[in-house]
Amino acid sequence: MSAAASTPAYRRLSVEERRAQLLDAALSLFAHRAPEEVSLDDVAEAAGVSRPLVYRYFPGGKQQLYEAALRSAAEELRHCFDEPHDGPLLPRLARALDRYLAFVDEHDAGFTALLQGGSVVETSRTTAIVDGVRRAAAEHILSHLGVREPGPRLRMTVRMWITAVEAASLIWLDEDKQPPVGELRDWLVEQFTAVMAVTAGRDPQTAALVEQVLSARDG
Amino acid sequence: MSAAASTPAYRRLSVEERRAQLLDAALSLFAHRAPEEVSLDDVAEAAGVSRPLVYRYFPGGKQQLYEAALRSAAEELRHCFDEPHDGPLLPRLARALDRYLAFVDEHDAGFTALLQGGSVVETSRTTAIVDGVRRAAAEHILSHLGVREPGPRLRMTVRMWITAVEAASLIWLDEDKQPPVGELRDWLVEQFTAVMAVTAGRDPQTAALVEQVLSARDG
Repeated sequence: MSAAASTPAYRRLSVEERRAQLLDAALSLFAHRAPEEVSLDDVAEAAGVSRPLVYRYFPGGKQQLYEAALRSAAEELRHCFDEPHDGPLLPRLARALDRYLAFVDEHDAGFTALLQGGSVVETSRTTAIVDGVRRAAAEHILSHLGVREPGPRLRMTVRMWITAVEAASLIWLDEDKQPPVGELRDWLVEQFTAVMAVTAGRDPQTAALVEQVLSARDG
Repeated sequence: MSAAASTPAYRRLSVEERRAQLLDAALSLFAHRAPEEVSLDDVAEAAGVSRPLVYRYFPGGKQQLYEAALRSAAEELRHCFDEPHDGPLLPRLARALDRYLAFVDEHDAGFTALLQGGSVVETSRTTAIVDGVRRAAAEHILSHLGVREPGPRLRMTVRMWITAVEAASLIWLDEDKQPPVGELRDWLVEQFTAVMAVTAGRDPQTAALVEQVLSARDG
């Protein structure tokens, strides 16, 4: 969408298109700089529009724009979890991870800023947006496992693994994207089966899942 | 220290004692309420002193007091990791976890507020304090493992496990401290060996550790 910067005068955008264009410009700025280092002037410049126009769309200023961009990123992240309920479970998990890691790779520093909090525009509202994505990820996994009423041990295991994946993503970005993304993905899948197996030793519900679903990977 | 509230007039405290008393009062308030719900008046009342006195010690007001309380909590957390380099590794890990989980148990909502960020007084400085504790935890584990130069896979594994422990603590508080703390501790130790074993399949350094150190637990 950066082509828009050179052709702002040649196209009239609809309200929705303009809004999407501004969010897109904001997201790509947040992708490379922490939110507190991005000004509305930067967004206006990146989108090839005037500062007042940005304010017309986001009268709440930077905080509103940041939240809208975060919501749009969260939406994109949720799409990573859209995986048909077909075939063996672990390849499904691997495909979702591929999409998720591609998102991390693309958004880079913006992903870090998004998750790490501590930015000047961080509020409980933005935290809630990020937490919503985590919850959605957990629900997706449980639905793929075919579990309607997960017990506390299973729930905790899934949420711990999701947090560990998040931590791995941040460290991966920090370490110049090493190991290669395919290896990271396989490693994360292996960790999932390993922690599920540990919980299976303490929880009959998880034990049944490990038996039925996870062991079907070669079937 | 809540006894201090009823006897403020009867003791002259030294500067250091007074400071410690105020931090203690602040910490116990933050332990049960989010920082944004604690006022300097609350701290003054809990410590049995006047608001101006709180300001004399913390002229930066709530932000300064919050950071000082956070630093004091971080210091306390670091002490949890002080474990002699004697005996088999896994019991050492279990003992450090016992102390850490006792801290989580005691500080409760304050621990959640401390880690989750998103509070109105959250800044990159407070995030750095919490990150410092995480780094210290990772260094302790690597030193107990006897590793001077951890490769990226081993480092990532240890940091992921620490993040997963953090997530488990938050969920545990959220779920009325279920499962019982002893079970949670054993489960976390089992997860540590499980993820180390997974990484061992991909990383010779970790494989050697699993062979030498972790398998020595029955020796």
